[in-house]
Amino acid sequence: MMKKLLVLNGPNLNLLGQRNEDQYGQQTLLEIEDELKEYLQRLSFHLDAFQSNHEGELIDWIHSANEHYEGVIFNPGAYTHTSVALRDAIEAIDIPVIEIHISNIHNRESFRHHSYISPVATGQVVGFGTMGYKVAAFALVEKLNERES
Amino acid sequence: MMKKLLVLNGPNLNLLGQRNEDQYGQQTLLEIEDELKEYLQRLSFHLDAFQSNHEGELIDWIHSANEHYEGVIFNPGAYTHTSVALRDAIEAIDIPVIEIHISNIHNRESFRHHSYISPVATGQVVGFGTMGYKVAAFALVEKLNERES
Amino acid sequence: MMKKLLVLNGPNLNLLGQRNEDQYGQQTLLEIEDELKEYLQRLSFHLDAFQSNHEGELIDWIHSANEHYEGVIFNPGAYTHTSVALRDAIEAIDIPVIEIHISNIHNRESFRHHSYISPVATGQVVGFGTMGYKVAAFALVEKLNERES
Amino acid sequence: MMKKLLVLNGPNLNLLGQRNEDQYGQQTLLEIEDELKEYLQRLSFHLDAFQSNHEGELIDWIHSANEHYEGVIFNPGAYTHTSVALRDAIEAIDIPVIEIHISNIHNRESFRHHSYISPVATGQVVGFGTMGYKVAAFALVEKLNERES
Amino acid sequence: MMKKLLVLNGPNLNLLGQRNEDQYGQQTLLEIEDELKEYLQRLSFHLDAFQSNHEGELIDWIHSANEHYEGVIFNPGAYTHTSVALRDAIEAIDIPVIEIHISNIHNRESFRHHSYISPVATGQVVGFGTMGYKVAAFALVEKLNERES
Amino acid sequence: MMKKLLVLNGPNLNLLGQRNEDQYGQQTLLEIEDELKEYLQRLSFHLDAFQSNHEGELIDWIHSANEHYEGVIFNPGAYTHTSVALRDAIEAIDIPVIEIHISNIHNRESFRHHSYISPVATGQVVGFGTMGYKVAAFALVEKLNERES
Amino acid sequence: MMKKLLVLNGPNLNLLGQRNEDQYGQQTLLEIEDELKEYLQRLSFHLDAFQSNHEGELIDWIHSANEHYEGVIFNPGAYTHTSVALRDAIEAIDIPVIEIHISNIHNRESFRHHSYISPVATGQVVGFGTMGYKVAAFALVEKLNERES
Amino acid sequence: MMKKLLVLNGPNLNLLGQRNEDQYGQQTLLEIEDELKEYLQRLSFHLDAFQSNHEGELIDWIHSANEHYEGVIFNPGAYTHTSVALRDAIEAIDIPVIEIHISNIHNRESFRHHSYISPVATGQVVGFGTMGYKVAAFALVEKLNERES
Amino acid sequence: MMKKLLVLNGPNLNLLGQRNEDQYGQQTLLEIEDELKEYLQRLSFHLDAFQSNHEGELIDWIHSANEHYEGVIFNPGAYTHTSVALRDAIEAIDIPVIEIHISNIHNRESFRHHSYISPVATGQVVGFGTMGYKVAAFALVEKLNERES
Amino acid sequence: MMKKLLVLNGPNLNLLGQRNEDQYGQQTLLEIEDELKEYLQRLSFHLDAFQSNHEGELIDWIHSANEHYEGVIFNPGAYTHTSVALRDAIEAIDIPVIEIHISNIHNRESFRHHSYISPVATGQVVGFGTMGYKVAAFALVEKLNERES
Amino acid sequence: MMKKLLVLNGPNLNLLGQRNEDQYGQQTLLEIEDELKEYLQRLSFHLDAFQSNHEGELIDWIHSANEHYEGVIFNPGAYTHTSVALRDAIEAIDIPVIEIHISNIHNRESFRHHSYISPVATGQVVGFGTMGYKVAAFALVEKLNERES
Amino acid sequence: MMKKLLVLNGPNLNLLGQRNEDQYGQQTLLEIEDELKEYLQRLSFHLDAFQSNHEGELIDWIHSANEHYEGVIFNPGAYTHTSVALRDAIEAIDIPVIEIHISNIHNRESFRHHSYISPVATGQVVGFGTMGYKVAAFALVEKLNERES
Repeated sequence: MMKKLLVLNGPNLNLLGQRNEDQYGQQTLLEIEDELKEYLQRLSFHLDAFQSNHEGELIDWIHSANEHYEGVIFNPGAYTHTSVALRDAIEAIDIPVIEIHISNIHNRESFRHHSYISPVATGQVVGFGTMGYKVAAFALVEKLNERES
Repeated sequence: MMKKLLVLNGPNLNLLGQRNEDQYGQQTLLEIEDELKEYLQRLSFHLDAFQSNHEGELIDWIHSANEHYEGVIFNPGAYTHTSVALRDAIEAIDIPVIEIHISNIHNRESFRHHSYISPVATGQVVGFGTMGYKVAAFALVEKLNERES
Repeated sequence: MMKKLLVLNGPNLNLLGQRNEDQYGQQTLLEIEDELKEYLQRLSFHLDAFQSNHEGELIDWIHSANEHYEGVIFNPGAYTHTSVALRDAIEAIDIPVIEIHISNIHNRESFRHHSYISPVATGQVVGFGTMGYKVAAFALVEKLNERES
Repeated sequence: MMKKLLVLNGPNLNLLGQRNEDQYGQQTLLEIEDELKEYLQRLSFHLDAFQSNHEGELIDWIHSANEHYEGVIFNPGAYTHTSVALRDAIEAIDIPVIEIHISNIHNRESFRHHSYISPVATGQVVGFGTMGYKVAAFALVEKLNERES
Repeated sequence: MMKKLLVLNGPNLNLLGQRNEDQYGQQTLLEIEDELKEYLQRLSFHLDAFQSNHEGELIDWIHSANEHYEGVIFNPGAYTHTSVALRDAIEAIDIPVIEIHISNIHNRESFRHHSYISPVATGQVVGFGTMGYKVAAFALVEKLNERES
Repeated sequence: MMKKLLVLNGPNLNLLGQRNEDQYGQQTLLEIEDELKEYLQRLSFHLDAFQSNHEGELIDWIHSANEHYEGVIFNPGAYTHTSVALRDAIEAIDIPVIEIHISNIHNRESFRHHSYISPVATGQVVGFGTMGYKVAAFALVEKLNERES
Repeated sequence: MMKKLLVLNGPNLNLLGQRNEDQYGQQTLLEIEDELKEYLQRLSFHLDAFQSNHEGELIDWIHSANEHYEGVIFNPGAYTHTSVALRDAIEAIDIPVIEIHISNIHNRESFRHHSYISPVATGQVVGFGTMGYKVAAFALVEKLNERES
Repeated sequence: MMKKLLVLNGPNLNLLGQRNEDQYGQQTLLEIEDELKEYLQRLSFHLDAFQSNHEGELIDWIHSANEHYEGVIFNPGAYTHTSVALRDAIEAIDIPVIEIHISNIHNRESFRHHSYISPVATGQVVGFGTMGYKVAAFALVEKLNERES
Repeated sequence: MMKKLLVLNGPNLNLLGQRNEDQYGQQTLLEIEDELKEYLQRLSFHLDAFQSNHEGELIDWIHSANEHYEGVIFNPGAYTHTSVALRDAIEAIDIPVIEIHISNIHNRESFRHHSYISPVATGQVVGFGTMGYKVAAFALVEKLNERES
Repeated sequence: MMKKLLVLNGPNLNLLGQRNEDQYGQQTLLEIEDELKEYLQRLSFHLDAFQSNHEGELIDWIHSANEHYEGVIFNPGAYTHTSVALRDAIEAIDIPVIEIHISNIHNRESFRHHSYISPVATGQVVGFGTMGYKVAAFALVEKLNERES
Repeated sequence: MMKKLLVLNGPNLNLLGQRNEDQYGQQTLLEIEDELKEYLQRLSFHLDAFQSNHEGELIDWIHSANEHYEGVIFNPGAYTHTSVALRDAIEAIDIPVIEIHISNIHNRESFRHHSYISPVATGQVVGFGTMGYKVAAFALVEKLNERES
Repeated sequence: MMKKLLVLNGPNLNLLGQRNEDQYGQQTLLEIEDELKEYLQRLSFHLDAFQSNHEGELIDWIHSANEHYEGVIFNPGAYTHTSVALRDAIEAIDIPVIEIHISNIHNRESFRHHSYISPVATGQVVGFGTMGYKVAAFALVEKLNERES
């Protein structure tokens, strides 16, 4: 049986590929998730995907992930900059959580430079466009291998 | 067939007319919405109204508004000062969004002076009491006419 | 006899329609004032218009307005961000003063985000382009009606 | 018939006793609630308990509490530091709301030192571990007695 | 023989009940201390009470308390916001120190929002009026019982 | 021939006694000036009085005062907090300039706590109401006597 | 019987006339007090004088002044910038307290620009050298006359 | 016919050579202007000179310069640090404006380190004493030649 | 012929594996470089490696990399937080530069939270330990493939 | 007759060797003072020692030291960070004052990084543990020798 | 024999004319230096030119310049904003140092607004493009003439 | 064989005794080093001395010192305030590093008040003039003796 990973996307990421294409690229979230599933399957991992605009639902999923997944690839979207509650959720669980941002948040408005998530994430992958999900997946798999060895 | 507009109200605005009457006036939200519908009907617009205390639901409505409405009158309530996610939702859509505040937020606690919404709103109408919804409606209709001409 | 209103414009607004057309639109100040006079005449108000680049003259007019007008539509231009003296003048008078800004000041340089005028103005109308003067006039008339009723 | 009180817990507090035991102690939320119910029953109060990770649900409960309860013991969790909306909800209701924090928030990261809730709460009980709920209950009952006398 | 507790009050608290009655209530310090002694006696604790306007004397008492008392209820008054020396004194001793404030310091001038004492106190009880001393006593006794068990 | 002094009043002080009487008292500027003239005449000084809402005119008067007066009593009004140009004017002249404020500026909005004028004024008299002009006159005369001795 | 006033001097002011003569002048504290007593006697007031380097003693005197004096001339010295406790003492009493500083504190290190005392003092007299005590006395007497009339 | 340039001087610069000679040198403004006229005449430019202490007049001149001059040498004096209105005036015109300061503003009080003018000026010449006007003239002529080539 | 990549390491990274092993892991820089070379060789890239404690040398290498390499993996070490010069060097070149940090800089001293490099880097890989170099290499290769397609 | 030096210790330093031994070492204050006396006696200086938790007493001693001692070794403890009054006392006297801190204050809480004493002390010796008193004594003796030569 | 001047250029300025041409123009550093040499030769000065990306080398050159040159034209590049060491080097030497920046640093990122060099430079020439080197040379020659006369 | 110590001096300290003699004294660096060598030889230590204006070279020396010396006396000069890289170098090594500053950095410009080095240095010796090197040497030897015992 394959190990299971979760990719979790926060607010407004359901709009990927439909708007702000300069900033976020042309792929829809579904396309990104499908590509990622395929990539991880080749590495013998099963991927589930979830997106929500609701901070509370994301917290619920983080809690639940600890029971059902080996690790999480998490793009918190705008909650990156405002949610102490999501930070606490991540800090409370045991599995690795990789923080990913599609755009280079350090090259945008100053309120996007600070992340409540970064100090409690296993690592961050920032600024590679939608390709970054693949980089995060690569890193998560390496991390899990490292833990096992 | 009449063009459709949306009036969207954020957290605690369901309490209008029941509490803090000095600050927010004596009209209930329902009365405000009804007056506004009537006013807009005279200008040949249909108005739908929605209120929620949930940030996620407001984001969902903003996304959805882009498909079904010509414009939005939005009072984000306390999320004005804390929600980057709502800002990103508004920035991602094409229709005009008028930001409205009943009280003069610049004359209250300092944490109410900053709005994450203002930079991405079409315009702001602030401090006119509940009458401000009518001003916002007037401005929205003018804006839509301007776009068409 | 018609009630009298005053539209007061601050520094550099005499250049409207001649420069920075992207930011401020193509209408000259005279055209805006004429349109506004016409619009208000239909609502049975007489409008006087004055513009000055001198902070002291604007203060003098604010003082004087209290004697001769029912209300003021005021675009303080750059003095918005630097003049405590204008703020005190407005705070000292009884008639409603509507603050208006043509551009969305919250979407420009950070020193334009703060207004000394807002806390003492009756309300603010921001970001609607030159059309905003009409919105401000609408709001002022509504406010005056509200007071009378 | 016994008077009713509400104990309301915010995000991540469903994990109590399962994680971060150094910080938050070994009791589960259920155990805390049960102990609290028993303690209050001895003082002739009935206690209801609710926990949510959703800011909107917590606001809804605060609104609703005003109709159905005599007072609230509220641990806003991470929303303490970020939610103006919860603050406004509490400010809008009439019954006493006691703010409680299990850990000493003033001895942790600096972003936990500020509480949006404190200025509108009846009082705060901070840093006593899970025992603090009992202190808050004691204080709430005293407060209600004080009001009646 | 009964265990001994100390209630220590800082600057200006000798004026309780004589001035600022809106802020601090109508009880004199003597009345508060007497009520508290009686309450604690019922719980089998002896209470000593001391008040001083002198920072140095309060430090001396804190040092001395460690030898002669089981715990301290401490209202540092204005020294809360300015005294690192008191903080260091508390940090240096072993017995529990409960910080108490009569008024809601978070709802007053901003320089009263920060407490040098909080990070080193066992817990804080804030905003309950003079009744808060009783809440602090309740908490202190619970804490001592907890330690023993 | 009597020595000449100047009392100079800045923006909005022409409204004294007409508005904000709680803050600024009931005397008109003319009454204050007349009382002050009379008081100084008894001390063998002639007083001239000037008020302007124009920063530039106040600077011109400061420059000119250096040629024609022995000293200045100056209430810069709102320019206290914003005018580096007035500061430079005062710094450039030789005669004593007493800064006076009617209200206690340190007990009002925080932007009124800072004075660009104070560091270059001979001294400040703040918060005594309109009576403060007399205190400033007393101080100025004492200062001039001190210089002569 | 003459009314009694108190002049209270804070830390290091016992050194007046012995050191830092450029900053504080050549008069000793005793000479200043004597001159002041003489000046006030002519105005039919008796003056007592006290100096202390101890914050607590100054608070005790402020409390006590309320019982025995008509008003206080207070130079808080360095405690001006650090003592919330002295501020609270002054705020708690009924008689007028005139804050005086010998040097121009606004023209020195930035930590001397802020005064905890100013917002609760009746008025401030700053920067006139040791002559300022006489100005403060003049102002205090005027204030007392004003109250009586 | 010679091309025309304007040298514009702001508040207090009419005092040049009369006061603060250490800071600003011994030349009067008239001498500086005459030397500059002579220097520019040799380069085939006619120079007009204007000085005002009135912000509004300076704005009027900036507006007018755009019609009548090829370029401006502008010493905004103290308005450098406080006038957004002058900044907007310069931003609105097409001809080059060289900002000049006689003293090294970066080596004085911190409030002189920031210039509202610099971001919209063609270039800055700072700290060369009154000789800097000649440097600014040299730079302006070079700039105009550059534009033409 | 294989394409060439550069891995560039900044100050103190020559000590890797010798000190601070908790923070930075047990691998020496040589071991990391060798592993990385091997990994990239499998992906058909040649890797050169350089380390320096000298800011100037790192700038020289960045300039030179633009001529000789397809992309750079850059760990700027402590210069991340202080070097505008390195930022300008990266901004000036055309090839992708991946910023990498071994430790989670967002979970350390606050002066390590800001990176001058991030806004001009192609992307960031942070917090994965020394394994992060491999993640960065993966990302760089993906980026180069993306560019070619 | 031997020259006399004073070692002065501020708040909580009476607890040395009894608590916080990790931070402050195992020597009691008496042991430190005795060792220091012996060390200085070998260098032909007599040492007196005084400790107080009272800011006012420390000021009194500083004043008095100027009459009776050649120099002071001063550990202001927590008053380092809060006492402008102690700073003024030191600034007012003529003899050298060496500031000493046992722990490395720059490696602790940020409010301990700033010293009001440092700018007026002859020099600082920080972070050497209790051995630092000996270093301070060495420095003081060298300083006194330097003065004499 | 001609007097010698030095033009010193800091980090990344070796790339002039090759990159960022919008910001810095199309001339290479060599072309600028050659033009400048020719211009100064006409004024009877010999110019040497040096560029380095190494802060230490620039300091060495500043030290050395004091022995061998009459004055320096210095573009510190990015070290302008970060190097206290360069500032100290300039402050330590006697010959005039003219600070020059090609772009208008006040119109770029906020971290470029502050210069450690400006307070110790003889004067600044900012924002004229590469032509500014000629303006700086003109100013330097004028300054040297002024010194001699 | 004698134990070896290193005295390391940073930027501009090669100019000691040649410039800024008021600030730094009249001794050249060579004289200081020679005196220090002699003093340490008497205590049976050999001293090597190195000075550099290059941050990178200083880092290299710190790394190397760990292999070849028992301890370091380090005056980081201006790099004190700007170099995180030097801080990390010191933090990475095992031998004691004494930070020394000749002038009282806390009594100079505010940017000199902060030291990146202090938190990782064994101790600091500040403000004793060039004599401070001897104090630092004394402290270092005491520290080494302490370690051995």
